[in-house]
Amino acid sequence: MFDVRLPLSGERFGVVYRLTGTEAEAHAKARDICVEQTIEFPADLVTGGDIRTHILGRIELLQPAPEGGFEATISYAVETTGFELTQFLNVVFGNSSIKPGIRVERLELSPGLLQAFKGPRFGRDGLRGLLGAPTRPLLCTALKPMGLSAEALAEFAYRFALGGMDVIKDDHGLANQSFAPFKERIERCAEAVARANRETGGKCIYMPNITGPADQVTENARFAKQAGAGGLLISPGLTGFDAMRRIADDDAIALPVMGHPAFLGSYVTSPDSGISHYALFGQIMRLAGADVTIFPNYGGRFSFSQEDCRSVAEGAAVAMGHIKPIFPAPGGGMDLSRIPDMLETYGYDVMFLIGGALHKRGPDLVANARYFRSLADQI
Amino acid sequence: MFDVRLPLSGERFGVVYRLTGTEAEAHAKARDICVEQTIEFPADLVTGGDIRTHILGRIELLQPAPEGGFEATISYAVETTGFELTQFLNVVFGNSSIKPGIRVERLELSPGLLQAFKGPRFGRDGLRGLLGAPTRPLLCTALKPMGLSAEALAEFAYRFALGGMDVIKDDHGLANQSFAPFKERIERCAEAVARANRETGGKCIYMPNITGPADQVTENARFAKQAGAGGLLISPGLTGFDAMRRIADDDAIALPVMGHPAFLGSYVTSPDSGISHYALFGQIMRLAGADVTIFPNYGGRFSFSQEDCRSVAEGAAVAMGHIKPIFPAPGGGMDLSRIPDMLETYGYDVMFLIGGALHKRGPDLVANARYFRSLADQI
Repeated sequence: MFDVRLPLSGERFGVVYRLTGTEAEAHAKARDICVEQTIEFPADLVTGGDIRTHILGRIELLQPAPEGGFEATISYAVETTGFELTQFLNVVFGNSSIKPGIRVERLELSPGLLQAFKGPRFGRDGLRGLLGAPTRPLLCTALKPMGLSAEALAEFAYRFALGGMDVIKDDHGLANQSFAPFKERIERCAEAVARANRETGGKCIYMPNITGPADQVTENARFAKQAGAGGLLISPGLTGFDAMRRIADDDAIALPVMGHPAFLGSYVTSPDSGISHYALFGQIMRLAGADVTIFPNYGGRFSFSQEDCRSVAEGAAVAMGHIKPIFPAPGGGMDLSRIPDMLETYGYDVMFLIGGALHKRGPDLVANARYFRSLADQI
Repeated sequence: MFDVRLPLSGERFGVVYRLTGTEAEAHAKARDICVEQTIEFPADLVTGGDIRTHILGRIELLQPAPEGGFEATISYAVETTGFELTQFLNVVFGNSSIKPGIRVERLELSPGLLQAFKGPRFGRDGLRGLLGAPTRPLLCTALKPMGLSAEALAEFAYRFALGGMDVIKDDHGLANQSFAPFKERIERCAEAVARANRETGGKCIYMPNITGPADQVTENARFAKQAGAGGLLISPGLTGFDAMRRIADDDAIALPVMGHPAFLGSYVTSPDSGISHYALFGQIMRLAGADVTIFPNYGGRFSFSQEDCRSVAEGAAVAMGHIKPIFPAPGGGMDLSRIPDMLETYGYDVMFLIGGALHKRGPDLVANARYFRSLADQI
């Protein structure tokens, strides 16, 4: 049945899955993934032709994994993705996300598939150019707490920019609440950062949170651009990854994009299921257009290990054709004392994200930011 | 610090989290969630005023959970959500998704918050009315495998509709691939189902998959409507939940919506983290506008337990103000022999989703569908 000929290029991309169980169990799981992610049909009914030979996933390799279990590399015809990010993610892990003991470890993307994606517009070099910071680690802080007025948040933005921050972002929980409505907040904070830049000659950028209803994300981004925002923060776990891709690709917006991990944590909670830190916060964030990938650093309020965090930075930089490397931005309860250790883990191509700790050091926010900046300048 | 007065209604909604650990550990986790999901700021710096008293999450109850660990009910000011689905999900589980040992069990939504959401347009009664099936279980099948032409898929649709299926949906892996391009597929399949309906006098509807790039989902839905589709299939794990909400709310589309679980499985993989089946596939799917929630039945190709599945059906029907109850659609490797057992689990308010098994019964698809329908008619 279904013995049809299809116009296929022959090009395939690979996904490396880690599978729990014995070799026989892992092999059965791998065969199951080949069906589940493509034809989702009793394989014995598909007896011949190109659906059987090329559309069905193909096990390219099955070998013991260093962490236990087995690693299966499964290849798929690039045409199965329709060359769209949504369907690409669906082929990678759509239904298999619902089965335990399957973890996406790495994506091995082929040239023709990569051509479908622009990736980050700026990447590391572009963002360094924008910020006038050719080599040192970049510095970022966040505007919070939720409940403050747009005016109060803008005053913080002004002081942090005066003190030498590179990037001032909204906290990811600032949306369009009545306390600090989106448009007013963006206008006031962008103006405050521009004013500080005029005084210091600096190049600080404000990155407001544009996460919002599906029909407003692009509008939010355009408004932010017009109001003078220098970049955009978005939580693709809330909007879908493709909403971020759309913003990054939009030539009328053309701003750097920072991807936040909100609502994505469940993909990395289990060591045996979900998606690896490397693939999710490194490769997928990047493929979806983030110039900066935020994640919780080890030793803070969250539970990522040092190895998890290092792997995010690796996925943010691994060779992926024309897709530019991006900045890892470890945050989540970091304070200034962690900088030497973070430098050792991430090197110089990192954006330090320090939020509440900049308030904790004392009431003079300009001085606190200056101190943070002096640490980076000494590096 | 931050001693400000805010114009708050005083209305709060609740989220029931299950937390691992001892009572003291669970209590510490609950306090942490109150901060993490709202102000994300050192709580000791927020010394007074409405941010401290009302914006910060509040532990309403902490009690031992039947499954082990503790259940914490945490309430949030409705204003923290900005009355948007994206920010609502962010308050429920944004950053806490990244912490292990925290599971969203149930949402306890308050009247003012519910008013922000229309929920499903049709719900159970509306869909039964459309399909002319006032009491019996509904029958659904899927067009596949990927790789077939639009013409071949339409021929399947015709035969299944002739045989008496209520709903014929695209497989969720049919996107806009070259084998069966979106527009051609929708036109041919909608026409095939309409032709069958003319012959049988039936009311079968075709629900194409409109999951796609962020800037095309609405356009896809409108095209499908115009081409004669009777409903829409979408995978909110790929598009974001709000993209589904937007489609469901669109009066120019006004079609029933079926939510598919692709790429959402990682939320329910761990018993101690993520989101419960009840909240994710029941309450959230519904809040986001799905009239039907697809999930893998127990005893099929997937690993949900009977209890997990029953809880989806409960979340699909629990009282939620004006938000209509919706159909659970268990699928994933079901065959016809499972119907009596499924009836016992779900009752009559269920949509049976049977895919490949309708092909397995033999080559005469009309006869296979008729047999499936006869089983439902005997109920």
